[in-house]
Amino acid sequence: MSATLKDVARVVGIHPATVSRALNPRTSHLVSPETVAKVRKAAESLDYVPNPMASGLRTARSRTVGVVIPDLTNPLFPGMVRGIQDTLSRAGYTPLLVNTDNDMDTEATLVGSLRARRVDGLIVATARREHPLLAEVGEALPIVLVNRVTESAALPSVTTDEQHGIRLAVDHLVGLGHSDIAHVAGPTWSSTGHERAQAFQRAMRSHGLTSARRSFPVLGWSVEAARDSALKALAAAKVTAVVAANDQLALGTIAAARHKGLRCPRDISVIGYNDMPFMDLVDPPLTTVRVPVSDIGAEAARLLLSLLRDEAPSPVKHVRLTPELIVRGSTAALR
Amino acid sequence: MSATLKDVARVVGIHPATVSRALNPRTSHLVSPETVAKVRKAAESLDYVPNPMASGLRTARSRTVGVVIPDLTNPLFPGMVRGIQDTLSRAGYTPLLVNTDNDMDTEATLVGSLRARRVDGLIVATARREHPLLAEVGEALPIVLVNRVTESAALPSVTTDEQHGIRLAVDHLVGLGHSDIAHVAGPTWSSTGHERAQAFQRAMRSHGLTSARRSFPVLGWSVEAARDSALKALAAAKVTAVVAANDQLALGTIAAARHKGLRCPRDISVIGYNDMPFMDLVDPPLTTVRVPVSDIGAEAARLLLSLLRDEAPSPVKHVRLTPELIVRGSTAALR
Repeated sequence: MSATLKDVARVVGIHPATVSRALNPRTSHLVSPETVAKVRKAAESLDYVPNPMASGLRTARSRTVGVVIPDLTNPLFPGMVRGIQDTLSRAGYTPLLVNTDNDMDTEATLVGSLRARRVDGLIVATARREHPLLAEVGEALPIVLVNRVTESAALPSVTTDEQHGIRLAVDHLVGLGHSDIAHVAGPTWSSTGHERAQAFQRAMRSHGLTSARRSFPVLGWSVEAARDSALKALAAAKVTAVVAANDQLALGTIAAARHKGLRCPRDISVIGYNDMPFMDLVDPPLTTVRVPVSDIGAEAARLLLSLLRDEAPSPVKHVRLTPELIVRGSTAALR
Repeated sequence: MSATLKDVARVVGIHPATVSRALNPRTSHLVSPETVAKVRKAAESLDYVPNPMASGLRTARSRTVGVVIPDLTNPLFPGMVRGIQDTLSRAGYTPLLVNTDNDMDTEATLVGSLRARRVDGLIVATARREHPLLAEVGEALPIVLVNRVTESAALPSVTTDEQHGIRLAVDHLVGLGHSDIAHVAGPTWSSTGHERAQAFQRAMRSHGLTSARRSFPVLGWSVEAARDSALKALAAAKVTAVVAANDQLALGTIAAARHKGLRCPRDISVIGYNDMPFMDLVDPPLTTVRVPVSDIGAEAARLLLSLLRDEAPSPVKHVRLTPELIVRGSTAALR
């Protein structure tokens, strides 16, 4: 029986993923030179030969790309898929989509199935801040993260500038005279939820406003998931405006406000994030931060194609696109 | 380069087909135990990994199903995908989704790619009334049509009762006192557009109302595509109510009415079809015919699974689910 990656990892006393990273010329720069040296020595002494399946996956091109989506019923993602598909198909690649429903077991099964179908690479919109599966799969296959990132920043990504987006939202509300502003925050396991919540604190501080006990994270990204956090946000002292971490949470906040007898924007201003389809047609039309979803998808596809073409090692690239403020009817001047 | 089936066959000195049979748990009983042992040993020493795309393993199930969607940005389809996926995954099958953007060349490429990835069957939501590609692929692979059907009725399908749905819409408007009713109809190449338009004629006749020159087909299913047909419908003599063939067309009709200075529902009642997400939140909240999208998806998955399980020939099955009327704010009594 020949030595495995795990055997090498055991000898050096590190995680198998780190061994793989150290032995791959495209990723060895992510590991300290001392560790790379130790791993090489151990691999040599154990007569370790990399698994032929991994190299087979890399050499035999299928011209298909797996696209891993957390929730297709969130209109953000179909828009992103459109950008991904347009760019991939112009380059002769076919996207195969899978939908994980934000479930990590489902995701593992689906990613396994895509790998068994010999996809050349993955575009992944399901990243969590801690995500061992992606770190592991990233050793064997080019991956580009889209919309959300992992904490380690080890995988290339295309996202939007959350700092800037939330700053636009808070500036808009402050410009309308609001100072008692709360944040209905996204789930803390997602980089978008986490970064938008941090950006909210920072933007409030920059205006000299208090943000202490003004951020109320939800468990999921849906209209329904918003209700409890929105009710808490609306119960916070003197709150006259809410920055919601996405459009669904904004809609949930408006519904919760209505339930309490508050009218939007007369009694409470609410601002969303994403500008998903039909947000110009809801009542009141939603003021929101528009994310360029199709461009994000197109950029992610271009980045993956460059990885598939170029076998040379290159630094991991993180692309950030800039969102814009769309002012509609759900925000108004403080009375 | 990884080892192939042929490499294993050469080492053992037998035919590749025998190697394949020996390694497949479902067929290994057809080969002598000694040969199975020899093949397993050779495969192990060569680090042979079965390739699901290799023609030698064509009979082996991949436990994946291709799902062919015309337009993921139409919220009808993500809801359907959810029903498909829940049912397939409970049975141990993985859905791989592709999005054709209603383009027949794209569809041919994507279906080709799914077949090359050895999907066991297809669930297809892109059917046109005339659809040579599907007739051809249906010869080679189990296919279930969903939402739309082909004219020939040769392929099994799960749809909703369009007659009943449109009848509910017309009855509702007649009950509110309307008699001058127009139809913003779907594209004539799709069974849903065609059947709903026919159902409109029939429902109007059954009330003794004229439907002549009252049906205005659009070219696509989007809000934007509705505008021209909606303006024609609104210009038809004395029209006080519009039955739109789906929710996007209803939203486009309301926008076109507003453009002409008509208010909905005060001056014109508009009813949609599908009840896609957020239609309760638009202004005015949309009265519509609700299609049980998740149930349609689940039924289609069940039907395909039964075809995959049962090798016996059986009559082609067509399942029709019943839609229901959802009354909201976009329809009102004739003034």
